[in-house]
Amino acid sequence: MPKSLAKNAAVPFSVTTGALPASKKLYVKGNRHRDIRVPLREIALSKGSGQPSFSVYDTSGPYTDPQAAIDITKGLPRLREAWIRGRGDVEEYPGRGVNPEDNGLKVQEAAMQEFPHVVKTPLRAKAGKSVTQMTYARAGIITPEMEYIAIRENESQSCAAASPPTGLKRPYQKGESFGAKIPEFITPEFVCDEVARGRAIIPNNINHPESEPMIIGRNFKVKINANIGNSAVTSSVAEEVEKMVWSIRWGGDTVMDLSTGRNIHNIREWIIRNSPVPIGTVPIYQALEKVGGVAEELTYDIFRDTLIEQCEQGVDYFTIHAGVRLPFIPMTEHRKTGIVSRGGSILAKWCMSHHKENFLYTNFEDICELLKQYDVSFSLGDGLRPGSQHDANDEAQFSELKTLGELTDIAWRHDVQTMVEGPGHVPMHLIRENMEKQLDLCREAPFYTLGPLTTDIAPGYDHITSAIGAAMIGWFGTAMLCYVTPKEHLGLPDRDDVKTGVIAYKIAAHAADLAKGHPSAHKRDDALSDARFEFRWADQFNLSLDPETAKDFHDETLPAEGAKVAHFCSMCGPKFCSMKISQDVRDYAASEREKGMADMAEKFKESGGEIYQKVG
Amino acid sequence: MPKSLAKNAAVPFSVTTGALPASKKLYVKGNRHRDIRVPLREIALSKGSGQPSFSVYDTSGPYTDPQAAIDITKGLPRLREAWIRGRGDVEEYPGRGVNPEDNGLKVQEAAMQEFPHVVKTPLRAKAGKSVTQMTYARAGIITPEMEYIAIRENESQSCAAASPPTGLKRPYQKGESFGAKIPEFITPEFVCDEVARGRAIIPNNINHPESEPMIIGRNFKVKINANIGNSAVTSSVAEEVEKMVWSIRWGGDTVMDLSTGRNIHNIREWIIRNSPVPIGTVPIYQALEKVGGVAEELTYDIFRDTLIEQCEQGVDYFTIHAGVRLPFIPMTEHRKTGIVSRGGSILAKWCMSHHKENFLYTNFEDICELLKQYDVSFSLGDGLRPGSQHDANDEAQFSELKTLGELTDIAWRHDVQTMVEGPGHVPMHLIRENMEKQLDLCREAPFYTLGPLTTDIAPGYDHITSAIGAAMIGWFGTAMLCYVTPKEHLGLPDRDDVKTGVIAYKIAAHAADLAKGHPSAHKRDDALSDARFEFRWADQFNLSLDPETAKDFHDETLPAEGAKVAHFCSMCGPKFCSMKISQDVRDYAASEREKGMADMAEKFKESGGEIYQKVG
Repeated sequence: MPKSLAKNAAVPFSVTTGALPASKKLYVKGNRHRDIRVPLREIALSKGSGQPSFSVYDTSGPYTDPQAAIDITKGLPRLREAWIRGRGDVEEYPGRGVNPEDNGLKVQEAAMQEFPHVVKTPLRAKAGKSVTQMTYARAGIITPEMEYIAIRENESQSCAAASPPTGLKRPYQKGESFGAKIPEFITPEFVCDEVARGRAIIPNNINHPESEPMIIGRNFKVKINANIGNSAVTSSVAEEVEKMVWSIRWGGDTVMDLSTGRNIHNIREWIIRNSPVPIGTVPIYQALEKVGGVAEELTYDIFRDTLIEQCEQGVDYFTIHAGVRLPFIPMTEHRKTGIVSRGGSILAKWCMSHHKENFLYTNFEDICELLKQYDVSFSLGDGLRPGSQHDANDEAQFSELKTLGELTDIAWRHDVQTMVEGPGHVPMHLIRENMEKQLDLCREAPFYTLGPLTTDIAPGYDHITSAIGAAMIGWFGTAMLCYVTPKEHLGLPDRDDVKTGVIAYKIAAHAADLAKGHPSAHKRDDALSDARFEFRWADQFNLSLDPETAKDFHDETLPAEGAKVAHFCSMCGPKFCSMKISQDVRDYAASEREKGMADMAEKFKESGGEIYQKVG
Repeated sequence: MPKSLAKNAAVPFSVTTGALPASKKLYVKGNRHRDIRVPLREIALSKGSGQPSFSVYDTSGPYTDPQAAIDITKGLPRLREAWIRGRGDVEEYPGRGVNPEDNGLKVQEAAMQEFPHVVKTPLRAKAGKSVTQMTYARAGIITPEMEYIAIRENESQSCAAASPPTGLKRPYQKGESFGAKIPEFITPEFVCDEVARGRAIIPNNINHPESEPMIIGRNFKVKINANIGNSAVTSSVAEEVEKMVWSIRWGGDTVMDLSTGRNIHNIREWIIRNSPVPIGTVPIYQALEKVGGVAEELTYDIFRDTLIEQCEQGVDYFTIHAGVRLPFIPMTEHRKTGIVSRGGSILAKWCMSHHKENFLYTNFEDICELLKQYDVSFSLGDGLRPGSQHDANDEAQFSELKTLGELTDIAWRHDVQTMVEGPGHVPMHLIRENMEKQLDLCREAPFYTLGPLTTDIAPGYDHITSAIGAAMIGWFGTAMLCYVTPKEHLGLPDRDDVKTGVIAYKIAAHAADLAKGHPSAHKRDDALSDARFEFRWADQFNLSLDPETAKDFHDETLPAEGAKVAHFCSMCGPKFCSMKISQDVRDYAASEREKGMADMAEKFKESGGEIYQKVG
């Protein structure tokens, strides 16, 4: 339930706080780094379950911790600050400050409420230093961030408490991994190796010390991103902060702020200071605002200044459409839906107007130099992604992908962490080719896809058309899935849409983990199926992705509290429940077996008591 | 909007009528059989589209035809009656009548309102005759049903009006069919061949002449089934009839009545008499009611009598769990979720109690003899399907599937049309094995699966967990997908849940058709994508699976009528729309090309006007 938390703020903020049903926050301490406290969500189970609780990965941050003092006007605790400063490679410096145009305002207009505690002296790398996790990883340094992530990915209460592999009894536990290799137990060393290799990224700007470290890579749990953001037409800052908190409550691993309207700088400040998950942006949106929306008037200087502005604020990853190259633009001309990426179309327009190569491409090394000073990760944007089934896997799309592979190499030369964005709209039979090409062309840099939507005919339900494609591409190796809400193509998502999108994508990500054979993914399915079979209704609800909805749906038909322990459900009624009958069958089988043993013993005696019967 | 239509009925019925937005009913006449009138839904398009309308397959029956007189107390017109009688192989006979126990009532209880126009003299085959479409097909007879289906599957306004193949310009149009071979144009002969071969079925009991013929087979459009039905705990007849009408309005191809409570016979009568789609049932549910819910007391005689009762009423296909054999039952003992099929668990209990083989298995040939007299199709039930990821693809499941293959052969020897049911709960990497084994073991008899659900952790969202699996297995070759609603595992679906389930499954079925390379599937995606790109908002809504929801979502953000023709949407605002920008880019590219041509011409002149430049 939204609760007003910032009574003194001029902007009336309220965000959702409180634990999920039957859940409490648990913090696991680090071994190497004793000041690490990794949050897990511990779900209490009922007595019949045989175990006290079940722990799951927790993206929700302090908002679900009743012990945490939440004050939106102050922002979250800066938990990584000591780690960042402790490495001795950063310096404070006077930031560039905020200009009216950063908020899309004309000089005479008043900006909205600024975040009251803006840090005026951001951090950056000391001259000649790189402060990226990739730099540390390549030097063999295990950062606190890496240990934090190892504990987090294991989802167990102690860093060393993972149960030993018990052998695979069922084919479903093995999975089909398409080359992914997820260890039974994730160690900090493994995290370090994967980051050094470029196969995973840890997006965490040194100016976003509030973030709880997380990793994106195909040898880890599949992650999901939730988009929020206002536009010129709608939305406000209070709504956007609540959407961020709301989306991580249900499992969003990162949040992209896609705001395009006024007050873009201030809204972003409020979001970052209160976000425990990495924040991504598409800086070209803000750069375009600064030139009055006229793409032709963009310059690299304006863009670069925007990057610095956002680096200083703490954005963790940037979508950079550097692969929208001039020669690829004519390849889109005979598409059904042209260029549907906003960033892609802006840059295409710029390239065409100036008869010049994309300035993001020509200045790519300069951008690398900038990003490594703040540890901002690249999300190399797929500006030429298909916007319809018809345009899937075409020349424009794959030409750009090849370029993104080349840019990945350049970024890696500069130690800049990099992931690569993917489609879009793709029919099922063409999905796997996307993953295979990406792995090959981008040398296993993490893939980050939007769906893909597997048909175009269901506006209003694109969370479903795309969850199908997302689950499949996640299985094939995509590291992070960008959610799609029911409002896709129709409008901006509200709070309900955000939740629906997040849950649909948690489903896709988890189905992918299961199919890949992630060693621990099946445990939650097993725990929930046990609860279902044993009529532990409360456990079934609490172990689910959305306990509130599960319980509400059940209660619509059988609201009485007694029904929660009843050995039947509303589908079949008391006399006719398959679960009940098959439990009866099980008991019966056991007694039959005993009787069978008695019969056998009888026959044994009758036969003269010989152990071995003569054959033949 | 529900509208009361049967003022004289004691039971106050109201069903949803009226056309979908911008749609009108179109009837296509047959060529061979001139009394055939195949319904299509014609969606009017706006002027900018360049075509007047777009036609789609229409499952909704007369309810969406403003010309049709709907009276629930009279039932639908008996459109197939003349065809059935015209074949000269059926006879009327005095039916078995209705007993109180058919409605699950004790003798002293009063039954609910009976359907006022029950036919007391049902039809059956004359002695020694078989009246199945398979019999006719094998004899090379093209029935009106087959021609009806050919027209229907082509979705075009004239039987011969399919546009000639235009060549495949895009890889997505080709698909990957896994052995399915869907012709560019479906002929009555093709329908006949597929039915003769057993690769497709036309479920249409001669006592359900109200039904509009449809086909289930992997060389046709993927179909979906919607389950309705009351239980001892909830629901009533009026609700169930409306659920049937409602589910076919949104695209349900068949409806299964899974009622288990009182008045089961009467409810079914109301449903069948008003249903233009085939109705399926699980007769063991009613048989069990007749023995007071005590599985051990079931006998083949009671079951057989129930089959006759339902054959005479007009049920089009029966789920028969004849594959739940005694030796397979112990194989389920170490499952996480035992036997989750209701029918399966009833039969398992019976087998164990009597130490006897399943009476459906031992009497299978007798059942075939019965079904061929009415042309009821088998849906061979998978009573041992997995109820959790853990139990997927195990020995019990595949042992039963092998048996279902053997039973398919027996049914085919008797000319009984047969499909085979499949799972259930299966992780993505194990889905394909299900299809491959089924095609092999059941020699391409149509597969009819429930989902499968690709994870167990999302009760409340199992329409999504299962749409993922359904889309995939439909792609691999499943002919019909049984929907799952958000209430699965939690309660009985209400009207909203039915619609959500149907739309999720229309998405899965269509995504499967696209991926298989169904020759016409892409046309709707293309038409909608064109509308989207050209900002024809109304066309985009009207071409979608759920125009009302699409429009409502759009209007939440931009309600003004002007916004429906605006060249922007609420996601980006007027100045910043990628679609608009990329249209600008297209115009720009064209003018650049012209300029380029001029430049070239200039250079050509400068070079001296030689056509061929000297090389080297």
